Amino acid sequence: MGEGQPDTRTRIQDAAAVLFRRNGYSGTGLKRIAAEADAPFGSIYHFFPGGKQQLTEETVRTAGTAYGRMVLELLDSLLDSLADDPVESVAKAFEAAADDLAATGYADACPIAAVAWEVASTNEALRVATADVFGEWVTAGEQWFARWVPDRDAARSLAHSLVMLLEGAFVLSRAARDREPLLLAGQSMATLLRTAIERTDRA
Amino acid sequence: MGEGQPDTRTRIQDAAAVLFRRNGYSGTGLKRIAAEADAPFGSIYHFFPGGKQQLTEETVRTAGTAYGRMVLELLDSLLDSLADDPVESVAKAFEAAADDLAATGYADACPIAAVAWEVASTNEALRVATADVFGEWVTAGEQWFARWVPDRDAARSLAHSLVMLLEGAFVLSRAARDREPLLLAGQSMATLLRTAIERTDRA
Repeated sequence: MGEGQPDTRTRIQDAAAVLFRRNGYSGTGLKRIAAEADAPFGSIYHFFPGGKQQLTEETVRTAGTAYGRMVLELLDSLLDSLADDPVESVAKAFEAAADDLAATGYADACPIAAVAWEVASTNEALRVATADVFGEWVTAGEQWFARWVPDRDAARSLAHSLVMLLEGAFVLSRAARDREPLLLAGQSMATLLRTAIERTDRA
Repeated sequence: MGEGQPDTRTRIQDAAAVLFRRNGYSGTGLKRIAAEADAPFGSIYHFFPGGKQQLTEETVRTAGTAYGRMVLELLDSLLDSLADDPVESVAKAFEAAADDLAATGYADACPIAAVAWEVASTNEALRVATADVFGEWVTAGEQWFARWVPDRDAARSLAHSLVMLLEGAFVLSRAARDREPLLLAGQSMATLLRTAIERTDRA
């Protein structure tokens, strides 16, 4: 295996992540995944004996966890460059998400939302996988906000709002092919955080 | 045609709306739509010569417009019963959405989001249909908020946040089978509206 060339299993999972993100679960066939991964069709069953179900579940968990980590790293790096201003950092993170989305032709938004919408009523194992990932994101967000908003319920509410505004803005921005919803979501998230910090200071 | 029994075209569109909402676009086959509508398979092509594409586009527009009207009627009726308090009305509307979602076993949320996520990068006519519906909702929301927040940009931002928080909360609540995300989204929306009204009063 050449250096920098991911192994077949990783290529399959990376290709699946891209396709699920863009086309959803039912719209993504295994043949297409094998072709995009430049892997023999049979290798999918070799690495994922449970077939599409297993591949999707592992992809949702892997891509979901990686995405949550990336968002937190972005928030921390913005915080460093913005004089520890969390309100400004949150607004800038949504601007960065808008730029990234526009740069991919409004294709690559959340890695799990398309699947989450499709499977919630029809595929219990995949529903649980998406719920676990959303739960991870909320927990990580709660810890991030707790630095300025120590009240646990308030920090948890902010974390939910961050994830919900991002998911809602992604679907509107993709549909309209317009950055505006993501930018407005960032301003709303900044308002919510500013309000929560002011409440904390008054308490 | 018996009284109270919708005609075949309406039954096909109603069945399609339920299935798209629960299973998405790729996950919904025409055979299943015909079966649920208790209609001959061929009648789909009779009423929708463009097949699944035409049926989906008309369903997105019809169900989307009806849903937006229903949410506005709910907001107005809450306003009547809550002494014209828009902040409380918004929070209660999210509670009602949470109750409705739980009552359907966390199946029936937004009628167009699952389709919107799937088609944004793959089906231009359907992408435009979902964008048009989201746009209608934002415009209607902007007019509703303008009664208390006359600044147009501020009212438009509130309308976006209402739609985005609702969409984000729907996907989290469905995945977790839990009302909490919708309730927290309602509280955040109430905070955003209260803040915008206070700003208006100070201006």
